[in-house]
Amino acid sequence: MRPVIVTGVTRAELAAVDQLAGLGAATVHEAIGRSGYLGPRLRPIQDGARIGGTAVTALCWPGDNLMIHAAAEQCQAGDVLVVTTTSPCADGMFGELLATSLAARGVRGLVIEAGVRDVAELRAMGFAVWSAAVSAQGTVKETAGAVNVPVSVGGQIVRPGDAIIADDDGVVCVPRGGVGPALAAARARAAKEEQNRKALADGQLGLDLYGLRDKLIARGVEWVTAEEYARGEADG
Amino acid sequence: MRPVIVTGVTRAELAAVDQLAGLGAATVHEAIGRSGYLGPRLRPIQDGARIGGTAVTALCWPGDNLMIHAAAEQCQAGDVLVVTTTSPCADGMFGELLATSLAARGVRGLVIEAGVRDVAELRAMGFAVWSAAVSAQGTVKETAGAVNVPVSVGGQIVRPGDAIIADDDGVVCVPRGGVGPALAAARARAAKEEQNRKALADGQLGLDLYGLRDKLIARGVEWVTAEEYARGEADG
Amino acid sequence: MRPVIVTGVTRAELAAVDQLAGLGAATVHEAIGRSGYLGPRLRPIQDGARIGGTAVTALCWPGDNLMIHAAAEQCQAGDVLVVTTTSPCADGMFGELLATSLAARGVRGLVIEAGVRDVAELRAMGFAVWSAAVSAQGTVKETAGAVNVPVSVGGQIVRPGDAIIADDDGVVCVPRGGVGPALAAARARAAKEEQNRKALADGQLGLDLYGLRDKLIARGVEWVTAEEYARGEADG
Amino acid sequence: MRPVIVTGVTRAELAAVDQLAGLGAATVHEAIGRSGYLGPRLRPIQDGARIGGTAVTALCWPGDNLMIHAAAEQCQAGDVLVVTTTSPCADGMFGELLATSLAARGVRGLVIEAGVRDVAELRAMGFAVWSAAVSAQGTVKETAGAVNVPVSVGGQIVRPGDAIIADDDGVVCVPRGGVGPALAAARARAAKEEQNRKALADGQLGLDLYGLRDKLIARGVEWVTAEEYARGEADG
Amino acid sequence: MRPVIVTGVTRAELAAVDQLAGLGAATVHEAIGRSGYLGPRLRPIQDGARIGGTAVTALCWPGDNLMIHAAAEQCQAGDVLVVTTTSPCADGMFGELLATSLAARGVRGLVIEAGVRDVAELRAMGFAVWSAAVSAQGTVKETAGAVNVPVSVGGQIVRPGDAIIADDDGVVCVPRGGVGPALAAARARAAKEEQNRKALADGQLGLDLYGLRDKLIARGVEWVTAEEYARGEADG
Amino acid sequence: MRPVIVTGVTRAELAAVDQLAGLGAATVHEAIGRSGYLGPRLRPIQDGARIGGTAVTALCWPGDNLMIHAAAEQCQAGDVLVVTTTSPCADGMFGELLATSLAARGVRGLVIEAGVRDVAELRAMGFAVWSAAVSAQGTVKETAGAVNVPVSVGGQIVRPGDAIIADDDGVVCVPRGGVGPALAAARARAAKEEQNRKALADGQLGLDLYGLRDKLIARGVEWVTAEEYARGEADG
Repeated sequence: MRPVIVTGVTRAELAAVDQLAGLGAATVHEAIGRSGYLGPRLRPIQDGARIGGTAVTALCWPGDNLMIHAAAEQCQAGDVLVVTTTSPCADGMFGELLATSLAARGVRGLVIEAGVRDVAELRAMGFAVWSAAVSAQGTVKETAGAVNVPVSVGGQIVRPGDAIIADDDGVVCVPRGGVGPALAAARARAAKEEQNRKALADGQLGLDLYGLRDKLIARGVEWVTAEEYARGEADG
Repeated sequence: MRPVIVTGVTRAELAAVDQLAGLGAATVHEAIGRSGYLGPRLRPIQDGARIGGTAVTALCWPGDNLMIHAAAEQCQAGDVLVVTTTSPCADGMFGELLATSLAARGVRGLVIEAGVRDVAELRAMGFAVWSAAVSAQGTVKETAGAVNVPVSVGGQIVRPGDAIIADDDGVVCVPRGGVGPALAAARARAAKEEQNRKALADGQLGLDLYGLRDKLIARGVEWVTAEEYARGEADG
Repeated sequence: MRPVIVTGVTRAELAAVDQLAGLGAATVHEAIGRSGYLGPRLRPIQDGARIGGTAVTALCWPGDNLMIHAAAEQCQAGDVLVVTTTSPCADGMFGELLATSLAARGVRGLVIEAGVRDVAELRAMGFAVWSAAVSAQGTVKETAGAVNVPVSVGGQIVRPGDAIIADDDGVVCVPRGGVGPALAAARARAAKEEQNRKALADGQLGLDLYGLRDKLIARGVEWVTAEEYARGEADG
Repeated sequence: MRPVIVTGVTRAELAAVDQLAGLGAATVHEAIGRSGYLGPRLRPIQDGARIGGTAVTALCWPGDNLMIHAAAEQCQAGDVLVVTTTSPCADGMFGELLATSLAARGVRGLVIEAGVRDVAELRAMGFAVWSAAVSAQGTVKETAGAVNVPVSVGGQIVRPGDAIIADDDGVVCVPRGGVGPALAAARARAAKEEQNRKALADGQLGLDLYGLRDKLIARGVEWVTAEEYARGEADG
Repeated sequence: MRPVIVTGVTRAELAAVDQLAGLGAATVHEAIGRSGYLGPRLRPIQDGARIGGTAVTALCWPGDNLMIHAAAEQCQAGDVLVVTTTSPCADGMFGELLATSLAARGVRGLVIEAGVRDVAELRAMGFAVWSAAVSAQGTVKETAGAVNVPVSVGGQIVRPGDAIIADDDGVVCVPRGGVGPALAAARARAAKEEQNRKALADGQLGLDLYGLRDKLIARGVEWVTAEEYARGEADG
Repeated sequence: MRPVIVTGVTRAELAAVDQLAGLGAATVHEAIGRSGYLGPRLRPIQDGARIGGTAVTALCWPGDNLMIHAAAEQCQAGDVLVVTTTSPCADGMFGELLATSLAARGVRGLVIEAGVRDVAELRAMGFAVWSAAVSAQGTVKETAGAVNVPVSVGGQIVRPGDAIIADDDGVVCVPRGGVGPALAAARARAAKEEQNRKALADGQLGLDLYGLRDKLIARGVEWVTAEEYARGEADG
């Protein structure tokens, strides 16, 4: 890892990111071909928050939050700070003071593949956080890492300037260049879902709505009565 | 695994299941001999829900929710859909649209040893869910599984038609044929607990109430003062 | 393990413990040299509780809560019961009836490296709990353990009479003899944080406030533009 | 759970089980429709063992091996003892003395969803074990469980008398009544694999051998050069 | 945590420790009342090693092995180095060069609740290691910790000078003052086991040898035939 | 995820990769600034293998190995196949037949963030594998993924054509463009280590060899006797 702080990062267009955020993480993830989801380990510390923003990335040493401080200077209004560590770490690397600093710069939230602390205070101040842990364990500020380099979080690659969409379902990353197409696809999907919602509420089955009945038959699935099934089990 | 959809399943009697539900998962679990608990990995996505119902089971391929759609058709009012996968999977296999479809059929909730998504929407519509994960990750509909076959969830066997009781403590399965005796035992236990609650609130100790003091002595437990203990430690 | 119940334990001074509790688990953990944190596996079952008290410890066999009943008798007003098991266990070893008994004695809460149940009832009665799991799984009362011996929880040693501080960030243990110095250090830290909070809210950076800019340079960190960085990557 | 020891269990025919064992766990698992695999948590404590036998099941309390002793009496030559616990447990519930006892009865091995100990001695005496853990932690003999009831292990249901096949790939359970068809299917599969092995060793591709090329195209997969791909990424 | 290196530690008597080691970790753990086992996460990187020695402890920051170097100076012939971290860490904190240094001082092995690397070289040089992970991930040497303070490893307290016994079953810690009684008890147990081994090899059952048959009956266990059991299941 | 198979990938120069491999994963990881390590979850299924090669990547759906077959066609002599899944999966996605096919093409080994099976056969044929699991569980061939796109494995980004170095310590990825500098740095490091090994074997301490003694003092570490320490503890 080159110990570097990259400045002057080009961001995804914020207006489009905001519109993506309105559609929610799951819909956006579907719209970009079921990709970009940062995994179920990243959970919100609050209920009901839904944010969008542009990624500033920080790569830290475990138990050391020095580079979060360095990343704060690179953050601007509309950003989401995305933090990971060189090896797995659950320490409370981020708390109320860092949140105060980021909020003063217009940062919209934090996504961290490690722990946070001061969660009562973070909730009270309305600073949105998705983290892999909550932990009172403090960190040192001793070891160099990197800011605004591509990072790997939850099996996905996040590049600085990418769009980050986060809500109760987790966090999705949309590559900077893909925000426009993602928005078009997500809107189309949302419209289609609205239509399906009505049909399903009226009692139609997904089996029919999505043409799955033939698929089941093609894959050899049979419908048998409970009685027939029990007889089959008994016969082995 | 035989790719089969079993129809015409006999359910536990719903009126008795409803009364079991009123007593709560932990009490029911005790009443049937401390069994049937589907394990601590299944957590509610909402606080305070308590439901009972009859199991419809679905066995899916990881990353594939085709059989949930097939199971929906087998669901009727009073059912709880119980979903598991052939190998561990945390993907968001169930969301708002499927919940809309199940709610239209009178299904009381979902128990899934995998992930769900659209949790903000599921909470808003009051559809009760116990899951092993929350995940925006979507699934395909490609691979055959089975509906209404016995499944193994959290170390317990769930058969179609069994009673499912779920609340903040988790999910308990009562075999269809055991609902009657379970109800009688659970009521007796609840009555006994009410009595004990009063004694304990009055300052009586469980040590005396349950006759544990003699048990401790029989097992060689000694009461020593802190001073005596410290002396013993020093002497090794 | 010697099967022993130690009586007459000397506690940390409760007035000082109460003042520590007011400062929060993370601040106290920092004040005692970043130690004493019982780890991220212990999570509150409720939001927003913050308690302090003196430790009564119980060491149980997995799946067996006999010694919790024995420990109840050793508890007095101001205590926090700290329970662990001889090998990892997620069973629901503690529920509403035990909480009723402890509440009647003035116990302030439970810290348990295992599971609890009746969480809806525990929340309703306002009994504060930090646990490693929630589980409906019941336990037996058959096997001897120990009460008020030193125990190891989450990588920390907890001795009977130590101060326990717990809130949304988790649980911190302060050795009985260290409560006085911890209080002085925690107050100093809180005052300093208050000052920093204002500077950060005004837009000052931690980089400057904590003198980290020179540290970064000393560790070989460079600031490069995104353009320069991309060029470097291409050149390998 | 009913505290019961079931005697006089009907076993799968041992000659057929032996032939299944010769084909290996993975082949047998495929032959019965990709089912019956007891999951990746069960690992062999030795390399290279491959056994088959008929299941005797024991359901124990965590930290308590009383029912293993009860199960030993139900074991006969050709059996494999299958042990699980009512809640997850990693303790060393089985060691050299129990193995000596089982070996004296002609038992072929142990499958345990908990821990074992004396592994050096078990390896030396050639007693085959698949376990979820190795642990020196001892257990008590206090709490009732069950012997020869259906149990749930690694997401599968194991019934007494079922065939157990275990090797370096893990453990597979074949329902007693399905051993005959499984053997026929497994042999056919092994023959087919032998044919494919030759073709693949000669340089043929699975893409062609299994007709997957058309499947890829049908699912919208495109072949693009690295240059084309890089251009697409740059354009977003 | 006080940043301190404690010198002049009193060790358990090495001759007695050596004799304990000969009896194995599981037997010693039983002999001291089923305690002292450092948990199933600590696994040997080699097969068949069995060592005993006196503990020198090191408490490190995650991702930082500075204090292992400080601990090396405190090690003498007959010691076992016991390393843990202030929060969970899987990094490769120890490798061939440190082992070379420790071997030169007569150290008998390493017990580390973190990762090691150079495992091929460590095996080749015969330096015995029990670790929680193997990892190529390197560490820095930046942050202070402590040497020869009491540490908590796998739920047990290890004090400098305690006896450490490690083999294929894992690691057991015997308090310094308890080595004498442990040796007497372990020898008695080993003798008793030898006697039982013969009886069991002759086909006697543990049920009878340990008087468990009456215990089962006292706990309400019934023996029923498979036919009776099936009938009971059908009746619910 | 775009369903794409990228052809004509430029590889790192194989002669240099081979020399890197000779130095081992840990040394290479250090030489490139402590980066590129694919994490401790990827473990070898065999002891003592050490390989180097150029990455062909495959991104699969969980429980589905269709894209491994597609990737095989893109493999050439000197490659290492690197497989991951869109969400975590432990299934046995790779076995002897696929290994036969890859071996016929001169592929040097497999790195897979999922499971493998047929491990006895893979060991026997000498095909080197690093995997996250061993599992008999089979997979389907139904869902499209991608071949030779950048993937994220164990917190690292692997691009097609990058150098892969794997041995008993795990797997390290060196970016294609960085192989030359990595080789120079790794050789220098190995030479330096050889020198240190001799000094340490002669009894010199790392404390002195690396100048750590002053670092400890600068960080406030004190040397105190056991007696002084005990007195300090007692005083609190």
